[in-house]
Amino acid sequence: MEKALDWLGRHHEDIVRGLADLVAIPSISTDGEHRTEIDRTAALTVDQMRAAGLNNAEVLRVGGSLPYAYGEWLDAPGKPTVFLYAHHDVQPINFVEQWKSDPWKLTRRDGRLYARGAADDKGAISAFLGAIAAYRQTVGSLPVNIKMVVEGEEEVGSKNLMKFFDTHRDRIKSDVIVVCDTENIEVGLPCITYSLRGVMTAQVDVTSAKIPVHSGMGGGALPDAALALNAVLGKLYWADGKLPIPGYYDSVRPMTDKETAATRKLPFDEAALRRDIGIVPTAKMAMEAGLNEYEQTWRRPAVTVIAQEASSIKGASNQVLPKATALVSCRLVPDQDPQQAFEQLAAFLTADAPWGVEVKVTPHGPPVTWWMTDPNGPAFEAALGAMRAGFGRDPVAIGCGGSIGFVGPLSELFGGAPALLMGIEDPASNAHAPNESLHEGDFKKLMASLVRLFDGLGKLTPERVK
Amino acid sequence: MEKALDWLGRHHEDIVRGLADLVAIPSISTDGEHRTEIDRTAALTVDQMRAAGLNNAEVLRVGGSLPYAYGEWLDAPGKPTVFLYAHHDVQPINFVEQWKSDPWKLTRRDGRLYARGAADDKGAISAFLGAIAAYRQTVGSLPVNIKMVVEGEEEVGSKNLMKFFDTHRDRIKSDVIVVCDTENIEVGLPCITYSLRGVMTAQVDVTSAKIPVHSGMGGGALPDAALALNAVLGKLYWADGKLPIPGYYDSVRPMTDKETAATRKLPFDEAALRRDIGIVPTAKMAMEAGLNEYEQTWRRPAVTVIAQEASSIKGASNQVLPKATALVSCRLVPDQDPQQAFEQLAAFLTADAPWGVEVKVTPHGPPVTWWMTDPNGPAFEAALGAMRAGFGRDPVAIGCGGSIGFVGPLSELFGGAPALLMGIEDPASNAHAPNESLHEGDFKKLMASLVRLFDGLGKLTPERVK
Repeated sequence: MEKALDWLGRHHEDIVRGLADLVAIPSISTDGEHRTEIDRTAALTVDQMRAAGLNNAEVLRVGGSLPYAYGEWLDAPGKPTVFLYAHHDVQPINFVEQWKSDPWKLTRRDGRLYARGAADDKGAISAFLGAIAAYRQTVGSLPVNIKMVVEGEEEVGSKNLMKFFDTHRDRIKSDVIVVCDTENIEVGLPCITYSLRGVMTAQVDVTSAKIPVHSGMGGGALPDAALALNAVLGKLYWADGKLPIPGYYDSVRPMTDKETAATRKLPFDEAALRRDIGIVPTAKMAMEAGLNEYEQTWRRPAVTVIAQEASSIKGASNQVLPKATALVSCRLVPDQDPQQAFEQLAAFLTADAPWGVEVKVTPHGPPVTWWMTDPNGPAFEAALGAMRAGFGRDPVAIGCGGSIGFVGPLSELFGGAPALLMGIEDPASNAHAPNESLHEGDFKKLMASLVRLFDGLGKLTPERVK
Repeated sequence: MEKALDWLGRHHEDIVRGLADLVAIPSISTDGEHRTEIDRTAALTVDQMRAAGLNNAEVLRVGGSLPYAYGEWLDAPGKPTVFLYAHHDVQPINFVEQWKSDPWKLTRRDGRLYARGAADDKGAISAFLGAIAAYRQTVGSLPVNIKMVVEGEEEVGSKNLMKFFDTHRDRIKSDVIVVCDTENIEVGLPCITYSLRGVMTAQVDVTSAKIPVHSGMGGGALPDAALALNAVLGKLYWADGKLPIPGYYDSVRPMTDKETAATRKLPFDEAALRRDIGIVPTAKMAMEAGLNEYEQTWRRPAVTVIAQEASSIKGASNQVLPKATALVSCRLVPDQDPQQAFEQLAAFLTADAPWGVEVKVTPHGPPVTWWMTDPNGPAFEAALGAMRAGFGRDPVAIGCGGSIGFVGPLSELFGGAPALLMGIEDPASNAHAPNESLHEGDFKKLMASLVRLFDGLGKLTPERVK
């Protein structure tokens, strides 16, 4: 292991060059116009897998999916098999004028590596391959077996991922899952994520009539669908209380005292958050009284109106509108059932419809279930120990307000395999936004932690990782 | 007069051909792409003015305005001068597939004349010119002086009309105003409109931050601008009461007992209205308890959300939105002051902003003031008598929920000239909508009424019309 760590130090620039090669390809999956580039990142990832020392590296597809890069190293009989997940597709470049350097050229500035995909999630590919190469180029062998899947559709909802897992279930079967697509809540503070919120989106359609009517003729007399939708959605306003949806919190699992105590010790800089997002000075945070930002976003339900349409401003004419529509995105927490949450929301929004207009609530796409695990047991201990040594600082277990849909089902598919979500981003990483970047110091520390994690897991048997 | 009425009967097909020529030109003003066609309808209107017997007919402009057609006949010294207003521009054709015949070809079907502009407002041009020609082609002279202005910008808010009036104030100075751009509330029932609502539009902008944030990270903790806008606008919901804006009704002029009694005798078919608009079966009318549809839409304030934007449904991503915007159109009634109404609305919507977000209310374009006149006096009596004889039925004085901005100011410009708003449309006319049409029987009756009106006004002196 020491040789591997030493190799990492000596070959850091080579690893960064590998990441630079990956980010140089605009593998945008969201617009359907960059299939060639996604093919190229998949192929390059396979090349880098081979160079790092993985075997049987190849591009795989399932049905009409975008390409997956797959590689493995299975020459550690009797040792646990570690499943590594990352994705090689990226978000598009909106607000290109806000980028301070070329999004497709890895640029080192103030201790960070800037490029689209540097953090989300090409940095994870490089980190995994760095740790693998460190062993293969020095001692030759790895302390564990490795199966590495690099997806090409994460930014479009991983729509074929479960099918891929199912199709290749025997080939990918592993004992421990490692994902580096989450955040460290502060630079230098190693975090392992043990809960994720789920998400369920509902479309709300209000209909009062078939056609619009001139507001001179109808204004005041006809039921206004656009105003009715406001009255319907306005009911969701929670001020600093709970969401007013009956029964919505009945199944919500409270934080344990231990969790609350741990959460309250975590660093949090509200002033920095307000400044980064540009929250208007008069506005308060929308949190339930008595909770802090972590408790609220990790373990409490939330609704967000993510879209609303009732004529455009530009196309407006003086009409009483017959239809209006919105999308309400609901973040779900342990132990909420997505179907029950949907039904509770629908019942609340359709009750006492303004002027008796038709209020229809329908699911908008499939839900993603929340995920939560017990951050204890041999694999977690190995991870925490590795991160402590790798970062030189005590790691913390955290929640995450976002969703990673596959973690729960994959863990189940592997018979309850522990899932280790180790952060590669930090609050300044700007994933999906302009000037995405990877903190280079944390990148190094993460790779050192992965080298140590492989070592630690190698000291266990497949039966003893849980 | 009898000769003129007789001429109308014998030359009806010629008048219809004149209207057919006018509607054959797609003089759409709303899209800025039909200037040539608007020039052509202006020129054709001038030609038709000359053919009907008006003098000094010509195309006029003011500044960069679209063309006005102007013509006059001033050879009745000592007689009142009648100002005739119409417009030669039309609305575009949306929903072209719903038209049962070519929108640009006047088509006779079931006693109606179908075409874009047939009713709004080229039918008025033809009706005026028919009545004028009836006199000029028979007795040679008219019983009154005539000044006729046919605007080309009505469908884009008559934006240069007041400037036109002001520029040509001496040339257009008249004693009585006649406008045929309003409705008869039932086919065959002659209506004279004596009140119009005003309109004031407010833009409501809610801002909580500078940038959107992933709803996983921020959902529940950050103030959601889109939901906040719903909470703000939802406050306007009036159920079956008054608008809940403090002070908003303080200056509203109540209907007199006589007005209420007259209004309650008017025919109204709610079932037909519901069917025509396709109101959903569960929905109730949005009226103040105790009022009927006429009282509500003619003489009570109304607000309508005519546009709202907070990301599009198609472009939605899981983000807490930092901004959301809506347009609220407010219909104003006697004696509301537009500026005061705006301030009351703004104060109501900005008070107690959800989570303290920034709620900005700004005027969206200039307001149009309500208009109301006393439907009594010699000119009104002449009109009522003419309509009674022309339609063979007692006319009624009605209100109108819509706005015609120039009527009040023009009347003032003429020193308080009476304004006679005589209907050319009926509930089936579908102005601005597919299958616009003019009821041919009412068209004939209107022309006969105009002939009688000129005769009646000719029996008065300029000093005695008021």
